[in-house]
Amino acid sequence: MGTLSVFLDVPFTKESGNPLDYYKDDLHPQKVLLGHEGCQTDAGEAWLPPVVQRILLQISRDPTLNHEYLPELGIYEYTRAATELAIGKESRALLENRAGGVHTIGGTGALWIGAEFLFRWYKPRFSPTVLYIAEPQWDSHGCMFQVAGFKDIRPYRYWNPINLTIDIEAFLKTMQRAPTGSIVFLHAPEEIGLKPKEWEAVAAVMEKKQLFPFFNIENQGLASGNLDKDAWALRHFVGQGFELLCAQSFSKTFGLYDELVGNLIVVTKNSETLIKIHSQLGRQIATTWWSPPSLGARVIGMVLNSPALLYEWKLSLQMVVKRLMLIREKLKEKLRILGTPGSWEHLTDQSGICSFIGLRFSQGEFLRKEKHIYLFENQQINISSINSKNLDYVAQSIHEAVVATSFGDYF
Amino acid sequence: MGTLSVFLDVPFTKESGNPLDYYKDDLHPQKVLLGHEGCQTDAGEAWLPPVVQRILLQISRDPTLNHEYLPELGIYEYTRAATELAIGKESRALLENRAGGVHTIGGTGALWIGAEFLFRWYKPRFSPTVLYIAEPQWDSHGCMFQVAGFKDIRPYRYWNPINLTIDIEAFLKTMQRAPTGSIVFLHAPEEIGLKPKEWEAVAAVMEKKQLFPFFNIENQGLASGNLDKDAWALRHFVGQGFELLCAQSFSKTFGLYDELVGNLIVVTKNSETLIKIHSQLGRQIATTWWSPPSLGARVIGMVLNSPALLYEWKLSLQMVVKRLMLIREKLKEKLRILGTPGSWEHLTDQSGICSFIGLRFSQGEFLRKEKHIYLFENQQINISSINSKNLDYVAQSIHEAVVATSFGDYF
Repeated sequence: MGTLSVFLDVPFTKESGNPLDYYKDDLHPQKVLLGHEGCQTDAGEAWLPPVVQRILLQISRDPTLNHEYLPELGIYEYTRAATELAIGKESRALLENRAGGVHTIGGTGALWIGAEFLFRWYKPRFSPTVLYIAEPQWDSHGCMFQVAGFKDIRPYRYWNPINLTIDIEAFLKTMQRAPTGSIVFLHAPEEIGLKPKEWEAVAAVMEKKQLFPFFNIENQGLASGNLDKDAWALRHFVGQGFELLCAQSFSKTFGLYDELVGNLIVVTKNSETLIKIHSQLGRQIATTWWSPPSLGARVIGMVLNSPALLYEWKLSLQMVVKRLMLIREKLKEKLRILGTPGSWEHLTDQSGICSFIGLRFSQGEFLRKEKHIYLFENQQINISSINSKNLDYVAQSIHEAVVATSFGDYF
Repeated sequence: MGTLSVFLDVPFTKESGNPLDYYKDDLHPQKVLLGHEGCQTDAGEAWLPPVVQRILLQISRDPTLNHEYLPELGIYEYTRAATELAIGKESRALLENRAGGVHTIGGTGALWIGAEFLFRWYKPRFSPTVLYIAEPQWDSHGCMFQVAGFKDIRPYRYWNPINLTIDIEAFLKTMQRAPTGSIVFLHAPEEIGLKPKEWEAVAAVMEKKQLFPFFNIENQGLASGNLDKDAWALRHFVGQGFELLCAQSFSKTFGLYDELVGNLIVVTKNSETLIKIHSQLGRQIATTWWSPPSLGARVIGMVLNSPALLYEWKLSLQMVVKRLMLIREKLKEKLRILGTPGSWEHLTDQSGICSFIGLRFSQGEFLRKEKHIYLFENQQINISSINSKNLDYVAQSIHEAVVATSFGDYF
């Protein structure tokens, strides 16, 4: 047999840009990762709500549960409760049976199945379909939509990196100029900091231009500590009568990263269309992973469907949010004491886990190269990665980064 | 907002053909499902090896395990042990670091990721690539390869439905006439009944025509009761120096259907190509489901890596295989006593869970419509679906189906 591989031309993928990889390779004793995927405790460990640990044990001892395949669309009690959590129990779309969830392999699986579905079946009267992605998600999510088949993907901006504020004008302008019927990917509406009035304005333009919203919600409850408040934008769009998709992930809010529990919510005009869409999604799922794994969705379904457990989980979320706000305040105070140039008010004006900290690319590079501190590629950080052990070092390093780059010594 | 859905044209999918759906809808008290996905006990329950139940409990109590994301390629200790199980610990391909596994969402996930990878990167010097699928898998797997992008998919035959024997001549002839560089999907080599000599002949033709094998192994250990014997065909191809893919599923052999534990084995010419291929597969996985769920692979990894647990699991497999052979013998004997026309020797000549029972389409229809007995769409049955409660009814019904259709009373 020949010795030449038929895969001779397969290239290495370009590096993922995951800060964890750089962090792991760094041997410096003071290295800090500010780009954890999930929510960290002050001890630097992955956070797991106590109720989850308890239910995991309970499930493993339950002799009535078997290990047979779930249906393609997953556990109904879980997807129903998850969908209610997102769009609200009293949502008319739910009461009219025109909204429903599909159990997926995490938020990524929901995005993938949703992207593939839209590429195949979303046929606005205007083609070819343009898809808009916010600048900070350009690298992380653009690739997925491209693989799903979308060719015309364009960026939009909602954040002014100079003023460190929401740039609602730029956002609205892009929407107004978008081709009728375009798809708009709305990542982390709970965290990006638009106020209800601003979401109303976005929805109004999107309705006028018949744009299709594809939401992605990963941190409901971890932005403000209030589950309903964090779902405000999504519920407003549903209330306005939009058809939409929403990928929902429970990895961060339940700490069950390794069980990849997601839900793809479909809201449409009528119940018959929903059933048809679910039949297509079921077919896609059967082709891609057959049916979803059960453990994580069993845990989350049990918590969401039990008032007592739900209450306990909500309290856990609120404790995390308090801790996040405290970190923001402490970091701002440290920078004030150090006399770091610039305003750091945005640190406490924002909320949630993932945040623009207000550093430029060169400042992020300074932190990485000089201080062994690793941010996300888009200069966001995970606030929960800061803890009592690394806070002083992180603040001092940010100070040095800002000073060094302000005087042109660096880059 | 308008009331017309943008998804107005989305059709219902055609019915899946899953016999379980028909079975569920049937209210007849004597209905029998002979098309279970997995291995059943004599009590008609899904089989779970005792060792699995024990390890599940142990894992749920282990305080050292966290719930963080696994790497994209999954748990190395699991994929390594799974790959060794399939191609053999002493395989030169493993020793030369040119064979390795990727942890996937079940066997389906391994097939999907493999099919997508081949569509993108398999560029034999001869294009466009033709893909061959055996007739019994035409419906179940053809669709997946089509969705992955393959356009020229052709059937091959290895089974003579009239004689109820292997048709090695037909198989070889199709391979000889295949365009150089075609891909051949080899489903269930452990079960379809080709003898080593026949596999040797298939491999020789495939080598000559530079055909690329894509194996799919779901029942290693459940066909003959011997893990090595069931992997004979795959190991022969690896030993002959083929580059190949092999989707491996542990759902049936470990009874953990709802955890969807799979492995995509890549065997290539050299270690560098393997690393490149793994980097591409990692990228695909990150786009499709981010990283695999952990529970099932932790269980299976623990069993495969512990000599004592492995021994216990092997004994469990052997007990199942004995039960399957007993069912085959009893069914043959019942049909002999009833004087059912035809030879039923193939029942005991074959082994394993899924089998052609030797019924024509019209006989399958008779069973479904007149007897409330549901087979797979391709007229195969799951042998383990037969148990002491339904054996007499199944045998009597097969007898009536054969008699009715032999005399032209039916169809």
